[in-house]
Amino acid sequence: MTMPKRDTYTPDSLLAVAVEVFNERGYDGTSMEHLSRAAGISKSSIYHHVRGKEELLHRAVGRALEGLFGVLEEPGAREGRAIEQLEYVTRRTTEVLIAELPYVTLLLRVRGNTKTERWAMERRREFDQRVSGLLKAAVAEGDLRADVDVRLATRLLFGMINSIVEWYRPNARGAVDGEQVADAVVRLAFDGLRT
Amino acid sequence: MTMPKRDTYTPDSLLAVAVEVFNERGYDGTSMEHLSRAAGISKSSIYHHVRGKEELLHRAVGRALEGLFGVLEEPGAREGRAIEQLEYVTRRTTEVLIAELPYVTLLLRVRGNTKTERWAMERRREFDQRVSGLLKAAVAEGDLRADVDVRLATRLLFGMINSIVEWYRPNARGAVDGEQVADAVVRLAFDGLRT
Repeated sequence: MTMPKRDTYTPDSLLAVAVEVFNERGYDGTSMEHLSRAAGISKSSIYHHVRGKEELLHRAVGRALEGLFGVLEEPGAREGRAIEQLEYVTRRTTEVLIAELPYVTLLLRVRGNTKTERWAMERRREFDQRVSGLLKAAVAEGDLRADVDVRLATRLLFGMINSIVEWYRPNARGAVDGEQVADAVVRLAFDGLRT
Repeated sequence: MTMPKRDTYTPDSLLAVAVEVFNERGYDGTSMEHLSRAAGISKSSIYHHVRGKEELLHRAVGRALEGLFGVLEEPGAREGRAIEQLEYVTRRTTEVLIAELPYVTLLLRVRGNTKTERWAMERRREFDQRVSGLLKAAVAEGDLRADVDVRLATRLLFGMINSIVEWYRPNARGAVDGEQVADAVVRLAFDGLRT
């Protein structure tokens, strides 16, 4: 038994601990007791910061969504031909995923059992649809192959990007950085493996 | 409370029920009681078929691995230039994933808490390494771009393929079949989205 430490958490640092526990145990499998133990402060200290675990979930997936939707507002995602916008969004989405790894990991794992989870899933779908719209526009402009169904291509593109949360470990020996991963994703997705 | 039905299970049909429960609840979260309820037969009837849930897991992931490693033994995976073998393996892996969807889904979700899970993860790594070897050979033969790290390319390729278990539902309205998905994967992975 460790003694509870004095509560020196900020909203952000408490969130970081909570996200780690959510990713480890699953959101459903996490109790306030687990959060209290991981943070090393009492449950009532946690309640001083937030109303409960759903508020922590909301803030965490909110942070991931803000990062992702932020990409769509950047000039590179709004100017030029659709394929250039799509390439930009692919690159930046990968970079945001790596910069906000635990938060995006959590976002990709929510399952829809609570109001917050359903909201997060709805927002994710919205993001996917925005990107899907870019694919459609790029096909119409003749820059993207028309022989792959747009919905299927969107799924596979996000499949490739989102899979990064399964294996990317920023501090692993020989770890590549976000930019290198984003480069590889863009090359693979747009030009393929073939020379 | 439903009455237990007479045990008319074969090893395969019992396995199919178990895999569904494992995928739904997670292997760790599944008890013999859950399996008994899902199958509608008593626990002792299940023990008549298998020694316990780990044997069911072993058979289930074994079936997935057999399908995947089987691909590597096919002539298309052993003859011709490395890039042709790689393309063949990519296509067939996708087809096997879709044909054996619940089994491969389970394989991709095992986490390493039991001997069987660690064995499955080891075999998965072995499979990935075989494919990674093909990528390396294809780069050496000049058919694959050399500006993407082979390990990273292998991760992203499997990321794209494996993500299919997250969204593919064979009986959904307008569902594409395994061949169509495999076509899209091969086009995207080898030639990219760009025209």
